[in-house]
Amino acid sequence: MENQTGQRTVRAPRGNQLHCKGWAQEAAMRMLLNNLDPEVAEDPDHLIVYGGIGKAARDWRSFDQLIASLKELDNDETLLVQSGKPVGLFRTHEAAPRVLIANSNLVPSWATWNHFYELEDKGLMMYGQMTAGSWIYIGAQGILQGTYLSFVEAGKKAFGTPDLTGRFIVTGGMGGMSGAQPLAGKMANAVILVVEVDRSRIERKMKEGYCDVLVESLDEALKLVEKFTTKGEPASIGLVGNCADVLPALVEKGVIPDFVTDQTSAHDPLNGYVPNGLTLAEANELRVTDPKTYEKRSIEAMGIHVQAMLDLQAAGAETFDYGNNIRAYAKQAGVSNAFDIPGFVPAYIRPLFCEGKGPFRWAALSGNPQDIYKLDRLAKEMFPEDEGLVNWITMAQKLVKWQGLPARICWLGYGDRDRFALRANEMVANGELEAPIVFGRDHLDCGSVASPNRETEGMKDGSDAVADWPILNALINTAGGASWVSVHHGGGVGMGYSVHAGQVLVADGSQLAKERIKRVLLSDPGMGIVRHVDAGYDRAMDVANEKGVHIPLKKGD
Amino acid sequence: MENQTGQRTVRAPRGNQLHCKGWAQEAAMRMLLNNLDPEVAEDPDHLIVYGGIGKAARDWRSFDQLIASLKELDNDETLLVQSGKPVGLFRTHEAAPRVLIANSNLVPSWATWNHFYELEDKGLMMYGQMTAGSWIYIGAQGILQGTYLSFVEAGKKAFGTPDLTGRFIVTGGMGGMSGAQPLAGKMANAVILVVEVDRSRIERKMKEGYCDVLVESLDEALKLVEKFTTKGEPASIGLVGNCADVLPALVEKGVIPDFVTDQTSAHDPLNGYVPNGLTLAEANELRVTDPKTYEKRSIEAMGIHVQAMLDLQAAGAETFDYGNNIRAYAKQAGVSNAFDIPGFVPAYIRPLFCEGKGPFRWAALSGNPQDIYKLDRLAKEMFPEDEGLVNWITMAQKLVKWQGLPARICWLGYGDRDRFALRANEMVANGELEAPIVFGRDHLDCGSVASPNRETEGMKDGSDAVADWPILNALINTAGGASWVSVHHGGGVGMGYSVHAGQVLVADGSQLAKERIKRVLLSDPGMGIVRHVDAGYDRAMDVANEKGVHIPLKKGD
Ligand SMILES: NC(=O)c1ccc[n+]([C@@H]2O[C@H](COP(=O)([O-])OP(=O)(O)OC[C@H]3O[C@@H](n4cnc5c(N)ncnc54)[C@H](O)[C@@H]3O)[C@@H](O)[C@H]2O)c1
Ligand SMILES: NC(=O)c1ccc[n+]([C@@H]2O[C@H](COP(=O)([O-])OP(=O)(O)OC[C@H]3O[C@@H](n4cnc5c(N)ncnc54)[C@H](O)[C@@H]3O)[C@@H](O)[C@H]2O)c1
Repeated sequence: MENQTGQRTVRAPRGNQLHCKGWAQEAAMRMLLNNLDPEVAEDPDHLIVYGGIGKAARDWRSFDQLIASLKELDNDETLLVQSGKPVGLFRTHEAAPRVLIANSNLVPSWATWNHFYELEDKGLMMYGQMTAGSWIYIGAQGILQGTYLSFVEAGKKAFGTPDLTGRFIVTGGMGGMSGAQPLAGKMANAVILVVEVDRSRIERKMKEGYCDVLVESLDEALKLVEKFTTKGEPASIGLVGNCADVLPALVEKGVIPDFVTDQTSAHDPLNGYVPNGLTLAEANELRVTDPKTYEKRSIEAMGIHVQAMLDLQAAGAETFDYGNNIRAYAKQAGVSNAFDIPGFVPAYIRPLFCEGKGPFRWAALSGNPQDIYKLDRLAKEMFPEDEGLVNWITMAQKLVKWQGLPARICWLGYGDRDRFALRANEMVANGELEAPIVFGRDHLDCGSVASPNRETEGMKDGSDAVADWPILNALINTAGGASWVSVHHGGGVGMGYSVHAGQVLVADGSQLAKERIKRVLLSDPGMGIVRHVDAGYDRAMDVANEKGVHIPLKKGD
Repeated sequence: MENQTGQRTVRAPRGNQLHCKGWAQEAAMRMLLNNLDPEVAEDPDHLIVYGGIGKAARDWRSFDQLIASLKELDNDETLLVQSGKPVGLFRTHEAAPRVLIANSNLVPSWATWNHFYELEDKGLMMYGQMTAGSWIYIGAQGILQGTYLSFVEAGKKAFGTPDLTGRFIVTGGMGGMSGAQPLAGKMANAVILVVEVDRSRIERKMKEGYCDVLVESLDEALKLVEKFTTKGEPASIGLVGNCADVLPALVEKGVIPDFVTDQTSAHDPLNGYVPNGLTLAEANELRVTDPKTYEKRSIEAMGIHVQAMLDLQAAGAETFDYGNNIRAYAKQAGVSNAFDIPGFVPAYIRPLFCEGKGPFRWAALSGNPQDIYKLDRLAKEMFPEDEGLVNWITMAQKLVKWQGLPARICWLGYGDRDRFALRANEMVANGELEAPIVFGRDHLDCGSVASPNRETEGMKDGSDAVADWPILNALINTAGGASWVSVHHGGGVGMGYSVHAGQVLVADGSQLAKERIKRVLLSDPGMGIVRHVDAGYDRAMDVANEKGVHIPLKKGD
């Protein structure tokens, strides 16, 4: 199915028949196709996978040649991809990566959206985001799992347990990504109250099965909260209201939730956040008639909103920022201590990074959901002590809809990723799984990203902006023999603000795959430990000692 | 020999005894030591090798640990170096690089000297320049050869021959780097007239054997030029004078040189360039008493200087800019068409890049000059048709003083680098050479640098700032199995302005070395061809077709 600009509907082949000369090439081809599967991609006609304009190939001509090149690629050759276009092919050797990818990298002084768009207009570049241009995006599962994980980690930190039974979370926003919150909270066994100014958003999430009930008043909401927390029953409640009204009301009533956070669209005070004291209709009108006033009121409202969060924090609620930049605007509104609320990465994610944990994932090239279910079982067997993980898999089996090739996201750490993949490789070898499995991860991983406004915000030693780390990550994974390796710029936070690397490794049941797994799935999460040891994190040092990660020169040596 | 801050005199061991567990590790260790040899490094006490503050290791503690790690490194392990500090060590495999290096890389929005210095003060970073932090700097040979090569290439372009016998070059400056000009011109068989305002600079170069005669007047100079060009005898003449006086005088007299260029310190109008109409003493005084006026007069003088260059160009002289930014200042002075004078990279070097040529080099780990002389002979035997190369080697044997381990720089292209190294590898195997040879290159190579103000200035398709290329270069050389691979930021032109990669490969006579040479010494210069094909250069396309470089998707496909 092709139209005049070259678009067509694509979908990865299923089953265990090769269309390429080896499984690494086949996997790269299937995952590229899968990234553009209409079930997976946001705008496949324009090759856009997710995250704004994150693309899988530069244009349809490049896409066709990528597929053709992958099909002809020998088992001792390596294909080079420059911003989504196949530009070269060299002889390497069997244990080397089959594909090497560099997307959207710019010389720093030219690393702006303006220059990027200039180049894009000339057909010289594309934006790879993180997993779009590196062919390991697996759909909406990631945001649900990430949100769930943050809640679980907040639980561990505040109460020493990932099980939030009887606990009460308050947050804002039920839109595109924030809409994962009600379900994620429930998956963690909590009672979650989500304040959302737009009634229709709550209604949609109820239809999708992501939210249980809609209420119109805080009192009504609090009655439900009381009921469910007392019974210890998980529940998600959508309250039509404005956070800048509702949160101060909680303070006034002396109701202190266990957790407070926010995912309203505060990153954009004009087209995102809705100021209080206006109906939604009035707000929509003011936005057009008097944008200046709108923005001013919006920022004032964020001040009130964050002040209430600070008050709840002072009263004992575990409070955190969820990456929407609301602290910066509240500061503008005069809330000078807005940054007393910690960001979620330093607060909950970094400790995991210190253990080499991150958004690891696998996909079944067979297309057979049974392959994933078998690996779900394996994961539960191998990591029974990891309650969060076991619970995630149980819930995911019920709640996550397959998009494209069946896949599972699962945060595993150093020493576990390789062990797990080795077992999977055996299952491929002995026919328990129908076809090979790909193991990959987000570029947002423990040792593969430099992004001072997000993943590396507030590093202990001030090394937030040091980009040597993602480069070394890509180099060591190439040396060890990942199936494909990528280096991108600008993912997550935009041009100029991040450098990051990815790797994907195919377990095809072979002896060579076994060796590659042993190397790459240790060096890759190992970089997370190395990077955090170097920055002075004790937890990383403990893990390094415990697991025997070799660090030649440590702080204080 | 060690003092209280840890400095000591270091020098690479010689001979063919191993101090490490393999020759790749041994080579990395010797080349690191060699970079800091007082014969090679500019300021070894501070670990500074060359190029401002380009360092070989972050600090002496890191240096010691680098040596220790290289000594203990197994033949299936890889050491990670982050801005001159050894930070991790992972198991890889025998055919993988032994060392992977990332120096001075910063997230673009933080990629400034200010932020770099902040990090350096905290002990978190060092500046790697190009070959300082990647352990393949070989001393002053490079600048002499580079200058010689530019003259030879200018000759080829203007007159179809690298032999400048009977030709007449006019240039300015006989200082630090510009002082290589008189000798380089003579090596190309030309008569070269260098205008230098500071008499003592000419005297010094005469003492060093770099310049033949000093004259005081233009007429005197032109008589000598007449005499030597008529006889076809190479000669170098230093004229005490100011370019802004001498070049207009040439125009007035109707004397049109064959080549016109300039290497006065025009990059700095206050502390570098000397305005005309003043004696040197007067200029030195004005610089202090009235810097504003000095700078104004300096820029005016550059306008006059460049206008004369344009006039000579119009009259038929092959005229080029030599990387000192004089065009930009002349433009400020009102010479609106200053950029009609082409830069030397687009004019002469880029055509070489299109053939995969660049500053390739080798060093004898034995320390025995005979090893280099044998390879000199081999190069002359293998490439007799390359007149510039043959002549360079003949002259270099006479004129280049060894610094540290004996080495030779030699611009070889795609298809020649690997052939040459394979022969050398055989000579190591059969004992003709005393010890293994390392093959490396500058980061300023055909396919390994993005630097929009220098190496990638004015690319045909406007892709000057695309940094995917050096990243892919590092990845493919890692995949192919170079002995060590590096990715740096800011070399040559400073923080924010460049991204570049390097590789070094050891020929130890083994079968594995042979395989690695066949892969890496094709993929590395191959990237130069691929990169220039992609940018639309016909010459690169011809070379790709002729030599069978595989380009999946070309412009116009
Ligand atoms: N891990 C992370 O860093 C991460 C993950 C997901 C989302 N985010 C951030 O969360 C924010 C939301 O993302 P999204 O995709 O859901 O955006 P969205 O615009 O789709 O949804 C935001 C919702 O907030 C509601 N809202 C706006 N102002 C409100 C107010 N004052 N009170 C109550 N509701 C209000 C809107 O009606 C909308 O439904 C963004 O800033 C995004 O960057 C961060
Ligand atoms: N390939 C390259 O890109 C490349 C290579 C080498 C040097 N350069 C550039 O060349 C310039 C010179 O480098 P350097 O290390 O020799 O600097 P330097 O300061 O050591 O030498 C410059 C010389 O120019 C002389 N001079 C200044 N103004 C003059 C004038 N009006 N007339 C005559 N002489 C004058 C000075 O007295 C001095 O001796 C720099 O701008 C450098 O960046 C570029």
